[in-house]
Amino acid sequence: MIEKTVIEAENAAREADLQADYQALGARLARRSVDIEALTARAMSFGVAIPSWGTGTGGTRFARFPGEGEPRGIMDRLDDCGTIHQLTAATPRVSLHIPWDREDPSLLREKAEEVGLGFDAMNSNTFQDQPGQARSYKFGSLSHTDPETRRQAVEHNLECIEIGRAIGSRALTVWIGDGSNFPGQTSLSRQFDRYLDSMKAIYAGLPEDWRIFSEHKIYEPAFYSTVVQDWGTSLMTAQELGPQAQCLVDLGHHAPNVNIEMIVARLVRAGKLGGFHFNDSKYGDDDLDSGTIEPFRLFLVFNELVELEDRPGLDLAHMIDQSHNVTDPIESLIVSAGEIQRAFVQASLVDRAALEGLRAENDALMAAATLRAAFRTDVEPILQMARLRAGAAIDPVATFRASRYRHRVAAKRPRTRSDGGGIV
Amino acid sequence: MIEKTVIEAENAAREADLQADYQALGARLARRSVDIEALTARAMSFGVAIPSWGTGTGGTRFARFPGEGEPRGIMDRLDDCGTIHQLTAATPRVSLHIPWDREDPSLLREKAEEVGLGFDAMNSNTFQDQPGQARSYKFGSLSHTDPETRRQAVEHNLECIEIGRAIGSRALTVWIGDGSNFPGQTSLSRQFDRYLDSMKAIYAGLPEDWRIFSEHKIYEPAFYSTVVQDWGTSLMTAQELGPQAQCLVDLGHHAPNVNIEMIVARLVRAGKLGGFHFNDSKYGDDDLDSGTIEPFRLFLVFNELVELEDRPGLDLAHMIDQSHNVTDPIESLIVSAGEIQRAFVQASLVDRAALEGLRAENDALMAAATLRAAFRTDVEPILQMARLRAGAAIDPVATFRASRYRHRVAAKRPRTRSDGGGIV
Amino acid sequence: MIEKTVIEAENAAREADLQADYQALGARLARRSVDIEALTARAMSFGVAIPSWGTGTGGTRFARFPGEGEPRGIMDRLDDCGTIHQLTAATPRVSLHIPWDREDPSLLREKAEEVGLGFDAMNSNTFQDQPGQARSYKFGSLSHTDPETRRQAVEHNLECIEIGRAIGSRALTVWIGDGSNFPGQTSLSRQFDRYLDSMKAIYAGLPEDWRIFSEHKIYEPAFYSTVVQDWGTSLMTAQELGPQAQCLVDLGHHAPNVNIEMIVARLVRAGKLGGFHFNDSKYGDDDLDSGTIEPFRLFLVFNELVELEDRPGLDLAHMIDQSHNVTDPIESLIVSAGEIQRAFVQASLVDRAALEGLRAENDALMAAATLRAAFRTDVEPILQMARLRAGAAIDPVATFRASRYRHRVAAKRPRTRSDGGGIV
Amino acid sequence: MIEKTVIEAENAAREADLQADYQALGARLARRSVDIEALTARAMSFGVAIPSWGTGTGGTRFARFPGEGEPRGIMDRLDDCGTIHQLTAATPRVSLHIPWDREDPSLLREKAEEVGLGFDAMNSNTFQDQPGQARSYKFGSLSHTDPETRRQAVEHNLECIEIGRAIGSRALTVWIGDGSNFPGQTSLSRQFDRYLDSMKAIYAGLPEDWRIFSEHKIYEPAFYSTVVQDWGTSLMTAQELGPQAQCLVDLGHHAPNVNIEMIVARLVRAGKLGGFHFNDSKYGDDDLDSGTIEPFRLFLVFNELVELEDRPGLDLAHMIDQSHNVTDPIESLIVSAGEIQRAFVQASLVDRAALEGLRAENDALMAAATLRAAFRTDVEPILQMARLRAGAAIDPVATFRASRYRHRVAAKRPRTRSDGGGIV
Repeated sequence: MIEKTVIEAENAAREADLQADYQALGARLARRSVDIEALTARAMSFGVAIPSWGTGTGGTRFARFPGEGEPRGIMDRLDDCGTIHQLTAATPRVSLHIPWDREDPSLLREKAEEVGLGFDAMNSNTFQDQPGQARSYKFGSLSHTDPETRRQAVEHNLECIEIGRAIGSRALTVWIGDGSNFPGQTSLSRQFDRYLDSMKAIYAGLPEDWRIFSEHKIYEPAFYSTVVQDWGTSLMTAQELGPQAQCLVDLGHHAPNVNIEMIVARLVRAGKLGGFHFNDSKYGDDDLDSGTIEPFRLFLVFNELVELEDRPGLDLAHMIDQSHNVTDPIESLIVSAGEIQRAFVQASLVDRAALEGLRAENDALMAAATLRAAFRTDVEPILQMARLRAGAAIDPVATFRASRYRHRVAAKRPRTRSDGGGIV
Repeated sequence: MIEKTVIEAENAAREADLQADYQALGARLARRSVDIEALTARAMSFGVAIPSWGTGTGGTRFARFPGEGEPRGIMDRLDDCGTIHQLTAATPRVSLHIPWDREDPSLLREKAEEVGLGFDAMNSNTFQDQPGQARSYKFGSLSHTDPETRRQAVEHNLECIEIGRAIGSRALTVWIGDGSNFPGQTSLSRQFDRYLDSMKAIYAGLPEDWRIFSEHKIYEPAFYSTVVQDWGTSLMTAQELGPQAQCLVDLGHHAPNVNIEMIVARLVRAGKLGGFHFNDSKYGDDDLDSGTIEPFRLFLVFNELVELEDRPGLDLAHMIDQSHNVTDPIESLIVSAGEIQRAFVQASLVDRAALEGLRAENDALMAAATLRAAFRTDVEPILQMARLRAGAAIDPVATFRASRYRHRVAAKRPRTRSDGGGIV
Repeated sequence: MIEKTVIEAENAAREADLQADYQALGARLARRSVDIEALTARAMSFGVAIPSWGTGTGGTRFARFPGEGEPRGIMDRLDDCGTIHQLTAATPRVSLHIPWDREDPSLLREKAEEVGLGFDAMNSNTFQDQPGQARSYKFGSLSHTDPETRRQAVEHNLECIEIGRAIGSRALTVWIGDGSNFPGQTSLSRQFDRYLDSMKAIYAGLPEDWRIFSEHKIYEPAFYSTVVQDWGTSLMTAQELGPQAQCLVDLGHHAPNVNIEMIVARLVRAGKLGGFHFNDSKYGDDDLDSGTIEPFRLFLVFNELVELEDRPGLDLAHMIDQSHNVTDPIESLIVSAGEIQRAFVQASLVDRAALEGLRAENDALMAAATLRAAFRTDVEPILQMARLRAGAAIDPVATFRASRYRHRVAAKRPRTRSDGGGIV
Repeated sequence: MIEKTVIEAENAAREADLQADYQALGARLARRSVDIEALTARAMSFGVAIPSWGTGTGGTRFARFPGEGEPRGIMDRLDDCGTIHQLTAATPRVSLHIPWDREDPSLLREKAEEVGLGFDAMNSNTFQDQPGQARSYKFGSLSHTDPETRRQAVEHNLECIEIGRAIGSRALTVWIGDGSNFPGQTSLSRQFDRYLDSMKAIYAGLPEDWRIFSEHKIYEPAFYSTVVQDWGTSLMTAQELGPQAQCLVDLGHHAPNVNIEMIVARLVRAGKLGGFHFNDSKYGDDDLDSGTIEPFRLFLVFNELVELEDRPGLDLAHMIDQSHNVTDPIESLIVSAGEIQRAFVQASLVDRAALEGLRAENDALMAAATLRAAFRTDVEPILQMARLRAGAAIDPVATFRASRYRHRVAAKRPRTRSDGGGIV
């Protein structure tokens, strides 16, 4: 972790400017009858989970180019996550992935407490084969034609729940790569039946206060069909399973041009929106840093969430899910948490009463302008103030660099090899 | 209509070749243990409805270039549809669109009987304003913010049901253009609530033996959001309405790259697949002739339908829905009916027992090859024989041209103006 | 036009706030070593042309819902365009479309002078048939198989040049709908040959100080192939024609996911970027208001233009090209001009020296953050100040509404019919 | 390799059926004035290269699931390729990839001769880091900001040429992953300048009788921008380099909905079409087996190639480029070679004289039908006969399985580990 004095020194150099900017913004917002302090309080209440695996450098099927100081295991990952939260005060929880993060639960709890973090949803993995695994997932897992393979995959998910219970998690996210690469390879209908049967077996093992999230994705790693290919199938799944089952939306898992905020609105109405995997993308499941490709799209998602935030029972699990190929993963997670928080704050300052009046009159131009006015507002001073007040860094990336954290851990963590050779 | 002697003369010139081809194909199929006669019987049992409006030349927002002999009204359209069925024996029903086809129901029934046709689903229109209409649909219809506009749109649908009852239809297809062009213009969630309320009012007026079809479309004429944007929303709609409500799939109404046959499989499982609007497309809702752009995709849709055809309660309404901009609409409808029938016959000759065995063994290569072997089989002789046996034309386009039907009706039907000036 | 006193009164009510905002922004920018006055000067130098036809309500193939006070002809359109420029000081030129705007050139010049406008590029129309036209464009125009039809289309373009010369235009934009709806319908290669031949004939008639712009579009109104389908074909065209030929980029004319700013960079390198048609879109050529769907994309286009603005010979023709279906066209054009100007100003405040340093070090995170910092800056006070200083309106939409311009012209301009009946 | 007796035995069991089918097809084609023998001769003349790396199981960033008997190195790969050619008589050349296939050239030639193969284009690799490499390609290779890294990448390409010369190759294919993941990360224009400089350095080292192929790809592994993102940039590259530079089209490297056959037609006209990487895809660069997703698209590509085959100077390098994740790679390559050959034969039987007549008359319906009639023709007997006459297998997959080749090599080749752990 980073020494408090580093953060304080960095903040000291920036605080006067922040106060000036905050005051100026407050005055402008006041003119629009918006209370900046209420927004800052909202910003401070916001948190998004970090995926433990996001702290390592990602890669593509062509190559992976690791950086220095890559985490060696879950303990290093928790250190990195703790550092991110220390600097941002916006990432209070970590989401584990089994088997990558398999460890003695008591050690996990201890470490998490040490670095000031809680545990978010558990993630199972049946899209890879692990050494010593009895059956291969080459042709599927929860929807495999072979009942023994399905049983193995179900049991893995039940084990994830067990680990999760031991560390205080309250949800299981199920994403599978099952599908097919060729028309004809599988029965689209029976494969889904098998998937549902397996999910029901997992659901039967779900503790009463847990939720299970079904995550859809249009393609990859399967390239012709995917069992849970879109939110419609995810909804059918959650409906069949029961009230503890909900749908998880990953922003990068849709067909081109799809209106994601519509899906958000629909799932909320169905009582089945469980949460998000945040990232950004231009082409496929690019897993780029949140808010870097289409920031307005991220804002529009939060605009729905804020418009609908009073719907009874809405309890969302927000998580970042990105692959950091050309940046320092800690820095990308810091920036992404800030961009997500930014979209939330911008969406919070939409003048909703005015908007509703304009919509009632079908004043399309001014309704759209009302939304854009909120998006256009530079709320950076609010985010900075929220961090300052929480003891985090006004400028978390600059502070991270000043801390030389990466350099220090690199000394302890051996360099990993570039890889990806031949998977093309 | 076309004189029988014309058809007979045209067939006479082709029958010997047909018999030779049919025999050769029969022998090859027999080697694969497929009975050609069973396939021909299936082909003869197949029918797809024609949309009355498809008999006129379509257009784009840029222009419409009419041909000669355009139908002047529903009576002309029924003549054209009757001619198509006479030549193909594959289009036994017509689907009417109100108000374009508004006419005394007894005259409609009389005319239909005369030309040998029945009536398929009724289509309402709340995406255009009609002369004298009290409220405009500029900002929506069934989901409009104004309750009076919604009421007007509901009543129009109820009127469509009334007309339909009088002529023997048994279903109502509801497609609306409601949505928005700008983020913020409308509340995505409340607009859907209003839509559902209106649909419930229509559903309440549905006769016991009728069905109502909800049709989704990703975009156009609304360009930012559409109320029923995909099959997920269509499914939610059908679920909320009740057992008489089902979903209609138009092949051109999806996001790029979407796997449509997956949607077919999912809707069948949900008990909510009602039928299809057939056409083909490369970019958006291009409404091109069926099977002309991606014939394998059409085959894959029918592959699902044949695989699932024994599911209890499956009762599909097949309709063509195309816009004929550069061809004679009658010829395009003839060819399209044949392409749809072809896909059905090809899907019917998939060796399903072998396929299931290959799937069980995860022999992806041979399972895919099994499907392709069916697709690759040139079933043209079966389609020709089905037509010949039904008294239709072996080569319906050539026969149509030989009949000089278009020339004859053109003499009675005045030339219409090119239009589309300025809607860009 | 709008009385000056209306504008002044509206501005008076907003000026104090503007001065405060401008000063605060100036102080913040100064901290980043950015001179707000230089940006304001750049904003004031910026202009984008209005398409005359954009002042009327657009439509889709399904319907057109006109508003009140629709312009009756080019004289009304010029009034509307003059009003937009009066309020925004950002739209100094109008782009005419022949035959829609055919009129005595001296009257056109007189009117333009009266309303304070100049003339931008001329637009020809060979995608529609006009009454009395000898040959139809149903199957193409400049690339038609029939040489007489091609000749007619060439002559129409030469006439557009003639009219343009008479009114002081200096460029011709050629967009055609030629292509095909079905694989096989046309020879892709020979159709392009014919197109090039026709373009060469037009080029031969181009005055020495004119440019000709080739505009690509992936699809619509042709739905299988389009002759000039992308920038690659547009580039080949401009290369074959010669130095006076350049490429025009319409933001809505690309395949899904395409990186448009890359195309901008490439065409600049080839010395062939001629200008833009601005609009925004989510699905196809939606022709929505600029900056309303993906404002960051618009910014990224301008980021290239600003980065490359010193390239010798770069002389860009900026035009808005939108279809206003649910808004008052004048209001949409006002807002769009502002959004385009906003993107230009935001792109102008990118810290390019810092950016180059970060790029040289492959600091992807901070390079991207540098761009976003510029995008995030709310430059509204700069745009408002630019308008105020030019005698235009601080808030042009509010001022337009206060002026009751639309109400006043509606009294003179008869209501037009809803249309679009049957082109589906 | 496979013993001749196995092939002969398998063929013997199928030859009678083949002769019957061939005769029947010949008779039907004769009726259309098509000479089946000419088609068979064309089929026999057709060859497509195999990428050496395609003989191993591919993978995704999520996982790789190897099969049994994976090739251990280039010698095993050449064995596998030789087997494929033995069975298909359609894959006479292999394309090597350096460094994966680095080996003593004389051994390579010897082995190739032994298995009956020649060498196709060489492929360089600057998208991965190799052990001991001085500079990393994490941030680019030929377009890197660092001149030393660019030099290293240029030298690698020159080395590929050297190896290629030694083994009788005549072309170098350059595909790079260079681009960026975030707006702002790189200068789109200067990155291209650097790429061109590097390519010119490689071009300078090209032997006189060699060609260099530039291969474009819209995205992956870079997810915001790619230096050679489309055929337009590829064309600019080939134009700048000179007459020995041409463009290579990989069917899976385009934006959604793009009309690839148009690109083929355009590149032929520009004199810059160099060849193809064949595969199929539904979403992105899925690298699926050729002809399995959209067989009509493959046919349409060959339709252009056959229509334009007499253009002077056209000399195409055909190669398969696929990733085999769920099938035996040898089987997939066998089937794919057949599907590509099938498309070529189908395109060869288009009645081009009739087609031209129909196009001249704008008979869109019959022109499209003419193309479809060729596509629909089941030319399987021609492909089988071509193989039989060349001493290959009538049914190559069945023969491959009967030969137990995979089982035999598996005994010699140790099982490789599943991998892909953590690159998500």
